[in-house]
Amino acid sequence: MKAYVYVSPKKSVLDPQGQTIQRALKKLGYQGFDEVRQGKYFELTLNSGVTRTQAEADVERIANNVLSNPVIEEFRFTLEE
Amino acid sequence: MKAYVYVSPKKSVLDPQGQTIQRALKKLGYQGFDEVRQGKYFELTLNSGVTRTQAEADVERIANNVLSNPVIEEFRFTLEE
Repeated sequence: MKAYVYVSPKKSVLDPQGQTIQRALKKLGYQGFDEVRQGKYFELTLNSGVTRTQAEADVERIANNVLSNPVIEEFRFTLEE
Repeated sequence: MKAYVYVSPKKSVLDPQGQTIQRALKKLGYQGFDEVRQGKYFELTLNSGVTRTQAEADVERIANNVLSNPVIEEFRFTLEE
């Protein structure tokens, strides 16, 4: 099973990396981009001994405690067989 | 329109960040995770003047030239209205 975790800065938090990319795009001639936000992306490979329910609980806990900072970031995840 | 770009290290490229996370998870008692790979995630907001065809071409070019290093990384993207 694979778990995909996406961590991004909360809407209320400034994202200077994203702003820099957005300005760079403008300078390069791409006018159509109003906003860019950068986040992190994790691909976790689970071994076959883990049930889906267990995987969901584990990945949720890991995303919250290890992979993201809940003060300034939010996350979502998907599981795939 | 929104574009979501996912950049991850190529399968053939070592991912020391991911390996460190995997070892940390093991130490924390999560035994079920065989591999962790870390990548980047971008959320681009396009203004309404851009057509879908134009957006696809622009985002593909940006993902390849600006957001990723094609020597060691691969990317995929999705567009959403």
